Amino acid sequence: MAGNGLVSFFFVLVPVGAILAIVFAGYFYKKISCFSEGTEKMKEIAGAIRIGARAYLRRQYQGVAIFFAIMFVILLVLALAGGGSLASLFVPLAFLTGGFCSGLAGFIGMTTATMANSRTANAARESLDDGLRVAFQSGAVMGLIVVGLGLLALSGWYFIMAALGKSLPDISTVFLNFGMGASAMALFARVGGGIFTKAADVGADLVGKVEAGIPEDDPRNPAVIADNVGDNVGDVAGMGADLYESYVGAIVAAAILGISAFSGGLEIRGFLLPFLLAAFGILASIIGAFFVRVKEDEDQSALLKALRRGVNVAAIIMVIASYFGVRLLLGAENIKVFVAIVGGLLAGVIIGRLSEYYTSAEYKPTKQVAETAVTGPATVIIDGLAVGMLSTVFPVVVVAAVIFISYYYTGGGNFQLGLYGIAISAVGMLSTLGITLATDAYGPVADNAGGIAEMSGLPAEVRRRTDALDALGNTTAATGKGFAIGSAALTALALIATYTQQVQSIDPFFQFNLSITNPQVLIGLLIGGMLPFVFCSLTMQAVGRAAQKIVVEVRRQFREIAGLMEGKAKPDYARSVDICAQAAQAEMIAPALIAIIVPVLVGLLLGVNGVTGLLAGSTVVGFMMAVMMANAGGSWDNAKKYIEEGNLGGKGSDAHKAAVVGDTVGDPFKDTSGPSLNILIKLTSMVSLVFAAFILANSLANFL
Amino acid sequence: MAGNGLVSFFFVLVPVGAILAIVFAGYFYKKISCFSEGTEKMKEIAGAIRIGARAYLRRQYQGVAIFFAIMFVILLVLALAGGGSLASLFVPLAFLTGGFCSGLAGFIGMTTATMANSRTANAARESLDDGLRVAFQSGAVMGLIVVGLGLLALSGWYFIMAALGKSLPDISTVFLNFGMGASAMALFARVGGGIFTKAADVGADLVGKVEAGIPEDDPRNPAVIADNVGDNVGDVAGMGADLYESYVGAIVAAAILGISAFSGGLEIRGFLLPFLLAAFGILASIIGAFFVRVKEDEDQSALLKALRRGVNVAAIIMVIASYFGVRLLLGAENIKVFVAIVGGLLAGVIIGRLSEYYTSAEYKPTKQVAETAVTGPATVIIDGLAVGMLSTVFPVVVVAAVIFISYYYTGGGNFQLGLYGIAISAVGMLSTLGITLATDAYGPVADNAGGIAEMSGLPAEVRRRTDALDALGNTTAATGKGFAIGSAALTALALIATYTQQVQSIDPFFQFNLSITNPQVLIGLLIGGMLPFVFCSLTMQAVGRAAQKIVVEVRRQFREIAGLMEGKAKPDYARSVDICAQAAQAEMIAPALIAIIVPVLVGLLLGVNGVTGLLAGSTVVGFMMAVMMANAGGSWDNAKKYIEEGNLGGKGSDAHKAAVVGDTVGDPFKDTSGPSLNILIKLTSMVSLVFAAFILANSLANFL
Repeated sequence: MAGNGLVSFFFVLVPVGAILAIVFAGYFYKKISCFSEGTEKMKEIAGAIRIGARAYLRRQYQGVAIFFAIMFVILLVLALAGGGSLASLFVPLAFLTGGFCSGLAGFIGMTTATMANSRTANAARESLDDGLRVAFQSGAVMGLIVVGLGLLALSGWYFIMAALGKSLPDISTVFLNFGMGASAMALFARVGGGIFTKAADVGADLVGKVEAGIPEDDPRNPAVIADNVGDNVGDVAGMGADLYESYVGAIVAAAILGISAFSGGLEIRGFLLPFLLAAFGILASIIGAFFVRVKEDEDQSALLKALRRGVNVAAIIMVIASYFGVRLLLGAENIKVFVAIVGGLLAGVIIGRLSEYYTSAEYKPTKQVAETAVTGPATVIIDGLAVGMLSTVFPVVVVAAVIFISYYYTGGGNFQLGLYGIAISAVGMLSTLGITLATDAYGPVADNAGGIAEMSGLPAEVRRRTDALDALGNTTAATGKGFAIGSAALTALALIATYTQQVQSIDPFFQFNLSITNPQVLIGLLIGGMLPFVFCSLTMQAVGRAAQKIVVEVRRQFREIAGLMEGKAKPDYARSVDICAQAAQAEMIAPALIAIIVPVLVGLLLGVNGVTGLLAGSTVVGFMMAVMMANAGGSWDNAKKYIEEGNLGGKGSDAHKAAVVGDTVGDPFKDTSGPSLNILIKLTSMVSLVFAAFILANSLANFL
Repeated sequence: MAGNGLVSFFFVLVPVGAILAIVFAGYFYKKISCFSEGTEKMKEIAGAIRIGARAYLRRQYQGVAIFFAIMFVILLVLALAGGGSLASLFVPLAFLTGGFCSGLAGFIGMTTATMANSRTANAARESLDDGLRVAFQSGAVMGLIVVGLGLLALSGWYFIMAALGKSLPDISTVFLNFGMGASAMALFARVGGGIFTKAADVGADLVGKVEAGIPEDDPRNPAVIADNVGDNVGDVAGMGADLYESYVGAIVAAAILGISAFSGGLEIRGFLLPFLLAAFGILASIIGAFFVRVKEDEDQSALLKALRRGVNVAAIIMVIASYFGVRLLLGAENIKVFVAIVGGLLAGVIIGRLSEYYTSAEYKPTKQVAETAVTGPATVIIDGLAVGMLSTVFPVVVVAAVIFISYYYTGGGNFQLGLYGIAISAVGMLSTLGITLATDAYGPVADNAGGIAEMSGLPAEVRRRTDALDALGNTTAATGKGFAIGSAALTALALIATYTQQVQSIDPFFQFNLSITNPQVLIGLLIGGMLPFVFCSLTMQAVGRAAQKIVVEVRRQFREIAGLMEGKAKPDYARSVDICAQAAQAEMIAPALIAIIVPVLVGLLLGVNGVTGLLAGSTVVGFMMAVMMANAGGSWDNAKKYIEEGNLGGKGSDAHKAAVVGDTVGDPFKDTSGPSLNILIKLTSMVSLVFAAFILANSLANFL
């Protein structure tokens, strides 16, 4: 084990890594902007999408600003009222910056994506490799900005607080409030974006494709721009905010648990390790990103291989770097921590691949779902649900295995070290987020590029290339979703451990009774288990209501705008976007409030024991439901595409119609409700963490 | 508080109550048999249903016999090998009798139901009251046999063991093995019956109604008898076995917890109270049964009032009796136990009514589901799922409230007494099962009566009456399902408490660590939460496969039997029944094995802490999923019926077609997978309880 000089050096390395991420994000951004936007028509369409996405974000940030203002005041009052860990003016500030950084990451990611879409389409006119490079670099900007801003903000707060002479527990409190800000912002981004994207999708499909009989991505469709905007606000900004939150949450949880996992001067090193891993991960991701390239006119599997190569290179670098990192920082006697990191990294890959297995038409489950389409929509629904439910088995086993290994092997019987092991495995899983998120955020850019190629009438040759890029995006979307769920679950579990730690550090005399035979815990478990059901119910119905509004609007435009169908007049794209945005804004309030209020309410009634039960219940059930919904939805989607490729009767057959029903049910499953659960389980933990001192002082459970 | 003479007197009262239940069941059976079976045609059809039901039961019992033989040998080996609480030859015997009594109750209930169906139809030719009386009395036979046989067997075992000088813990072990036997039998009855009934239903509908275009219950349909048999094996035998298990489980759990909840000689009284409550409940149910009657040609609401009057009278008697029972047995200082009983009784009523609210077309949720049918099958599915998910809220709140009151008010800070309070509230809920099950088992008899009236061409006037009886059956089915789920959840929770008690009594030095931050518990929670998803997936797909087989057979008969469509030749009903029975048998094995093996496996790997986590996880998730599936299924069913009544376009409209899709998805939800979850959560607890000693001695967790 090295001396304290090295510790200081490592501390400096963290912001350097963060800045490097931002620098390379800028570099990739610059490289994309050098590509041409293409024809006038392409510019026009891309412009409309860009304006729409901006309009949505503006509206979202306006709504969110009110929420943040209210929360700021609440936290300020608590800070001024004093008592407990909230008694610091840095607390409300940290909360604000968390929300701001998450929002900024989303803004930059989306700006890049809406700039890269037409450039990807235009680059595909040159070659497949060019198209891939632009789309992937756009994803890399998002990935690197998320990790860069996350790490920069956290280390910035650290240095400020340390300079002011604050203790590690005080710094932890600031981190947690930063995390809650990021988490709250993520909820709005995920839920709002999820509602927007599916409402626009349904509106465009139902009226345009089904009623008016025009093809997908036809410029005459008044909702076509909204649909393309939706890909960006849902799959880019939403996914980015989700993983930003996981990233920050996992690092913060591990850092806090690190303080109590070690003793004899190692505390600061335990605290530092997750930051160091994140910095290593950034370097690994940047290097990996340069391995993503294909030769001209290779097939789709070569594209997939190219992306995987980048991810794998980053992972291998990460494994090696973290081995030495752990050795140098914690010493050879704590090398077992390294196993938890590798366990997390591996688990992320496995869970992602499992999602691919259950949702790709190349494998049995989705093929089977497609076959049940022959006997009608009801059997498609039943079989898709059955596939989704069964697909929970292996992700649960993988997460259970990670917990087991991290706790028992890494912890070796030491409770605190075991919990640290679990949290550090979450950090390990997320360490290479810079590149895993890049492969994921690549998808919607490719999707948009396809849309722009179609709308601007590019030649079939180019369409073929953008289609190949888009198809690859569907595969990476599945793995990305699995990864997002797995990392959310592991982060949430780490946050639960952090919660008990935090309570203990606020009140060292508090006697936990977390036994599941304690009725407080049991009732907490029940209510926590119920939350994901309520959350899904609300978000699914929200999509329905929002879709209804856009359907009415699209019908109106077809009816009232003369010459629209003949292509002589232009539809009012902006109005469709605005209606989707408005609906999404209105609908995201109720689910968001539930996620924030219920943990506080349960705490006031049942105390911190009840809250811990609530967190465990919502994490367990939320994890299962998220896996189920993502995989059922993905399976329905690809079963439909499989039939459209000419199998089982092909497009227009009864089987196809049945598969479309499955796909429509799957839309809110996989793109709204399912992903929102990732945030739910983390946000409830974050809220509980922040309000722990308040609950300890004011809960009715103190009188039980 | 009275002396020990009264305790002895109460002990005698229990078997007397049990015998009284059986005597009155015999009395009602006799009364039904005095009614005429009706015309030759009616006799013939009823005969076919009876033969089919018997054939199914024979096949089921044959399959189950093998399972019981294997389990008997395993338990015998464990008993001979000695060690722990299993070291008694009574253990395997108790297991066998549990299975036997459950099977016997199912057999008697179904024999009665298949005897009463044609008699109900024929009595409806006289008057509505006559029809109601026959159908209800058939239900009462089932209800009273279930409680009678349950209580008789338990008190029989008690007297035998007490006569042999065995201690209360030894008696408890015998009780638990009896419970596991009943539980295992129930699983086969519920899962097998659930698969049979839905496969037959789908087969009859899909080929008969949709493909051949003949009406429901048309005698030309080769699956029509199987369909009617299905109502009996699923809704009578399956539901009966389910509640038999809850009844036995709740009593056993409360009795065992009663031993440790009290001290100073009160132990035996705490042990006795649940039995006494059950005996009181039987008397209350018998009296209540005589209040179920209507005047001629009152409307449907009068029928419902008549049934509710019976249930309410029984409940009021029960409240009064239990007040004095608690006072006399446990003394005025323990009168708070009475509150737990009333809480349980009330909760049963409320959860039942909540199910009615969410599934009846008279209320907003189902009306809304019907309205979404206008925009197609996908929106119906989404909205039905959303309603089902949202409907978990209040049942969770009710169960949470019962736990809270029973533990904190009744327990008053004493942990053991608090757990006893929870278990005794489950007993309270189930105490009047004699009559609540009667109103529930009435439904399928009325349904069958309607079918027989249709098939035998009875006049419209009679059809109108049987339709009224049937419609009422749908309402009571909804409340019955809610009640079954609520009681299963509360019983399962009581069994978890019993489990920890049992482990402690086997090894008083064992140190539990049931904290949810203990990874064993956490992994247990995850695996337990996953079980209901796997279970639902398997049972839903099983229905699909079984339905596929019967569809093929019905098509074959229509094709190969000349003159079938013209009514000149008779279909081969027996073969359809046999195919459904065979398929149900084959398909029930995998889910059953999972429910039995997983708890043992988790125990071997993660020890009793892991098992307790598993039980909590499966109970919480199973409860939610059961509520969700029952209510979504019921809502789809009634939304379809609502449209068929002429709303939103009526029969044959696109909305109707969409609603049919919802209904078809809902069938396995509400009649197969959902109800099976009730058994899953109890059986896993029972298996864990029985194998507790084995796990304590052999778990790998001992080395962690």
